[in-house]
Amino acid sequence: MSSPEAGLPEDVPLAAARRGALVESVHRGRLAVCDPAGNLLDAAGDPEAYVYPRSSMKPIQALPLILSGAADAFGLTDRELAVACASHNAEEPHLAAVRSILTKAGLAEEDLQSGAHPPLYGPAATELLCSGDEPRPIHGNCSGKHAGMLAVCVHEGYETATYRDPHHPLQRRILGLIGEVCDLREDEVLVAGDNCGVPAFALPLRSFATGLARIATGERLSEELAGAALRVRDAMRDYPFMVAGTGRFDTELMDSTDLLVKGGAEAVLSVGSQEGWGMALKISDGTERAVRPAGLAALAGRGVEVPDTLSTVRGLHGEAVGEIGPLI
Amino acid sequence: MSSPEAGLPEDVPLAAARRGALVESVHRGRLAVCDPAGNLLDAAGDPEAYVYPRSSMKPIQALPLILSGAADAFGLTDRELAVACASHNAEEPHLAAVRSILTKAGLAEEDLQSGAHPPLYGPAATELLCSGDEPRPIHGNCSGKHAGMLAVCVHEGYETATYRDPHHPLQRRILGLIGEVCDLREDEVLVAGDNCGVPAFALPLRSFATGLARIATGERLSEELAGAALRVRDAMRDYPFMVAGTGRFDTELMDSTDLLVKGGAEAVLSVGSQEGWGMALKISDGTERAVRPAGLAALAGRGVEVPDTLSTVRGLHGEAVGEIGPLI
Repeated sequence: MSSPEAGLPEDVPLAAARRGALVESVHRGRLAVCDPAGNLLDAAGDPEAYVYPRSSMKPIQALPLILSGAADAFGLTDRELAVACASHNAEEPHLAAVRSILTKAGLAEEDLQSGAHPPLYGPAATELLCSGDEPRPIHGNCSGKHAGMLAVCVHEGYETATYRDPHHPLQRRILGLIGEVCDLREDEVLVAGDNCGVPAFALPLRSFATGLARIATGERLSEELAGAALRVRDAMRDYPFMVAGTGRFDTELMDSTDLLVKGGAEAVLSVGSQEGWGMALKISDGTERAVRPAGLAALAGRGVEVPDTLSTVRGLHGEAVGEIGPLI
Repeated sequence: MSSPEAGLPEDVPLAAARRGALVESVHRGRLAVCDPAGNLLDAAGDPEAYVYPRSSMKPIQALPLILSGAADAFGLTDRELAVACASHNAEEPHLAAVRSILTKAGLAEEDLQSGAHPPLYGPAATELLCSGDEPRPIHGNCSGKHAGMLAVCVHEGYETATYRDPHHPLQRRILGLIGEVCDLREDEVLVAGDNCGVPAFALPLRSFATGLARIATGERLSEELAGAALRVRDAMRDYPFMVAGTGRFDTELMDSTDLLVKGGAEAVLSVGSQEGWGMALKISDGTERAVRPAGLAALAGRGVEVPDTLSTVRGLHGEAVGEIGPLI
C-alpha cells in the first residue's frame, strides 16, 4: 500500500499512551522555540512547516482592542481583556465579562456571531442541557473574542454586521498585525475559515514562536505595538481563570508559572516567556490529551518547573490501566 | 531535541484533516490484511508489531458462550449473542437484550461488573443525565460482553463474583481461544487490563487479521470452533444494530456490506470477509475520527463498495471549514 508522505511536515513522537507492557497509542508533533529576533533556540520536527494556531492566535487578534483605543474608550477591565483572548468554559464569570464588553460597546448578546455550542465546562453544559434551553453564541468558547472584535468595530465605525468577513477592515487589520508580530509578509500568512466563523490563519511554526516571544517581552515590536502586547499579556497573566476556566490546562499552567499560555483547537499550545522566548507546539494528530505531557516536557527541557508530566489512566473501577506521558 | 523512536512500530499516514489549502492534522496507522492461513495479503506500516484490539476482540471473547453450551442451555437469541459482542449505545433494545441474558442465566443487573459510564448514544445519555439518575454498569458499552461472560460462568459452575480476574477459568479459556483462533502460543498473547475491568489482550496486528479471516470463514479452525465462530459471525451480521447502534460506524458498515465489522477503543477497526480475508487497522494516535476514512479507503482498495470516504467538517454556522479523508 502506497504512503504519500509528500507535503506532510516532518514530525517526531512526543507523547504516548501506555497500557500494560506496551505503548498503545502514540502522538507525534512539531515544536519550535524562538527568541524575539527569530533565532531558533530548539525544535522538534520541521519548524518551518505551517500550522494553524487556531485559538492560540487570540492574543494577537485582541491587539486592535488596545491599538484602536476601544479598550480605553469603553473602559474595559483587565478581566474583560482576558476574556477577549479566551477559549472560555462559559462559567458565570466568563459570561458576565462577555456581556459587560457588549454592554459597554452599546451592543447586545444578539450581535454576537460566534456560533453556538454547549459550554466547555461539564457542569455548565449539564445545567444548560437539562434546563431545556439551547446553547447560544455567548456560550461558545470564542464569544469573548467576538465581543472584543465587535467593540473595535463600534469604536472605529466599522460595520458590525459583517465583522466576520475576511475582507472586513478589522480582519484585514488583524492579518497585518499577525505579519508584523510574527515577522512575515502578509502574503506569507495563509487565511482559511475557523469554526466560529472568523478567519483562521496559518503560518510557519517558527514564525509563530517568534511572535510569541515578542508578545511576551514586547521586544522587536514598535513602541505602540509593544505597549499593546504587554497589556494583553498582563491581562491574561493577571486573570488566568478568564482565559479558560476550571480544570483547564491553560489556566493551571499560568497559575503555576509566570508564562503566557494559550491553547488552540487541534492540539496547539503557545507559550511565551518574559525571559525572552516563545514556544509553539502542534500535536500532528490534533489530540488534546497529548498537549499536556508534550508541552510540560518541552517546558521542563527549558528549565521551567512544571507539574508531573505523567497522567495515570484509570478504568471504570478506578484501577490504573495505563498512563499518558511524554516521549521527549 | 532527541526523538526516541525505538520501540515504536513503523506506521504511515492514513488520514488527514484539511482546512483551507493545508493539511491541519494527520493520522498515522498500521494495517494488516491476511487470509485464514496467515498469509499477508496487504499491509501498511509494520504488520508484525503488537496491537491491543480492545473491543474488537469481543467476537472471540464471546466464543465460550457457544462452546460451553451456555447459549443453547439458556436459549439465548441471536440478538442476545450479538449484544454479547457489542460496544453498544445503551439504547433500549441493547439494555433489554442485556437484561434478558442475565435473567435467562438466573442473574440480575447487580451481578454486572462492567463499570458505569454514560450511554454512548447522545440522546440516551441526555435522558439519563437530566433524569438525575447515575449511569449504571448496564449502560456501559461492554455490558453485553459482561452478561455473556456471567452466563458462561453460571453454566460451567465457575465463580461469578471473580469473573474479571485474569486467572479466572473463563479468562484463561478466552486467552487459550485467542491463541487458537489467531495462530499464536498463549505466551505470545500479552495481557493487560481493559477499562471495563476484564483482561485486555495484545498480539501482532498480522495475527489478529488472521484470526478475523478465520472467524469470518470458519477456515483453519477445528470443526467445533468453526461452528461457534460462524454462529457468532451470523448473529452479528443478522443484527448489526445490536453490535453498536444508531449512527455508529460498525452498524452502518455491516448494514451496507456483507462484512463482519467490530471497532475497538483507541481507534481499532477489525473486518472479516467471507471471501477469505481479515483486516486489522490501528490508528496510531487512537483517534476515532480517522477510523472511518482510513478503514473505508482500505476496504475500497480490496474491491469493497463503500460509502464516500470524505467527510465535510462544518463550522458553527453550518459552513464547510474543512474535510477529513483518507491518505491511502
